[in-house]
Amino acid sequence: MQYPNHIKKTNHKIINYANRGMDLEDCINDSNDYYLEINRALIYKKPTPIGVSKASYTSSGRRIDEGYFLAPSTLDYNGLYKGCYIEFEAKETKQKTSFPLANIHSHQILHIRKVLEHGGIVFLLIKMNGFVYLLKGSDLITFIDNETRKSIPYEYLEEKGVKVKEQIRPALNYLDVVDILFKGELEWKRKNLN
Amino acid sequence: MQYPNHIKKTNHKIINYANRGMDLEDCINDSNDYYLEINRALIYKKPTPIGVSKASYTSSGRRIDEGYFLAPSTLDYNGLYKGCYIEFEAKETKQKTSFPLANIHSHQILHIRKVLEHGGIVFLLIKMNGFVYLLKGSDLITFIDNETRKSIPYEYLEEKGVKVKEQIRPALNYLDVVDILFKGELEWKRKNLN
Repeated sequence: MQYPNHIKKTNHKIINYANRGMDLEDCINDSNDYYLEINRALIYKKPTPIGVSKASYTSSGRRIDEGYFLAPSTLDYNGLYKGCYIEFEAKETKQKTSFPLANIHSHQILHIRKVLEHGGIVFLLIKMNGFVYLLKGSDLITFIDNETRKSIPYEYLEEKGVKVKEQIRPALNYLDVVDILFKGELEWKRKNLN
Repeated sequence: MQYPNHIKKTNHKIINYANRGMDLEDCINDSNDYYLEINRALIYKKPTPIGVSKASYTSSGRRIDEGYFLAPSTLDYNGLYKGCYIEFEAKETKQKTSFPLANIHSHQILHIRKVLEHGGIVFLLIKMNGFVYLLKGSDLITFIDNETRKSIPYEYLEEKGVKVKEQIRPALNYLDVVDILFKGELEWKRKNLN
């Protein structure tokens, strides 16, 4: 049986239809590949920063013999869409009633504040209760600055976030939601590009 | 004797004054740290992508037991400046008369074309003959599309590029050159941010 490419990678996980078996990161990477193919946007996952404690040289180049993963101080994905800087982080939670803020590093929250201040588009993609929500960075910051709770209630996500459509390709069509939620930011640039 | 922080890191290399002993990457990283401190721009070096062939789990997390470096398909640095997407690559050459294009991967050249097409700011910082030049991505592409030579003559770099001032902090004040060479791109956004 032939599966489309983006399903092959994770076909041990396939359950019934569409992307139910792909994890969030797979879905986003597949979508970014697709956006690149159709020339809609240039968005890449940043490699996880690593520290190398031992390395050696081989005929094919430098090899890492011992390394470790470092905590990132920015978000996982960034790039360029319709002339705008775009950056986001993807998070999954198995919690049903709220999204724990401990899932986001404090230096990442500081970074989100800075991206907003410098005029970039920034958001989270949160997978929870079987849906993927796009939550604007500004709505996250508003919550943090006005609430003492250490987790975002699911109701807040349902109210402020927008559900992202899951489909065959792109697996997660999050740019359609960006088009709606960041219409103002995108329009300044589009006028000047066209 | 007390050196400023950015010199301490490389003080085994210090020769006489300013940044003559820092390599290009050190200078750029120092400058990006400085721009972040004074809140002028958010620009980060992307971690080099790696492949992990063996890993193990320790008490402090996942450890890489065997890995290798992958060729990047984008440029080394990207970020957000005055509401604009900015991306660049830094290259040093010991050649005196021309900069060999073989220093830039073909998929990076393709990526530069795409960044231009999508309305981002993109350039190279080239260290050659003791100076650092900022060359616009569009001038690089113009050269590639119109010349059969496999290297950029130093005269082209002197004519089209702009010398970046080396100083104590930031070690390499390349954003001052960006302000001049990308004035148009920056102004659209600045109007809307203020």
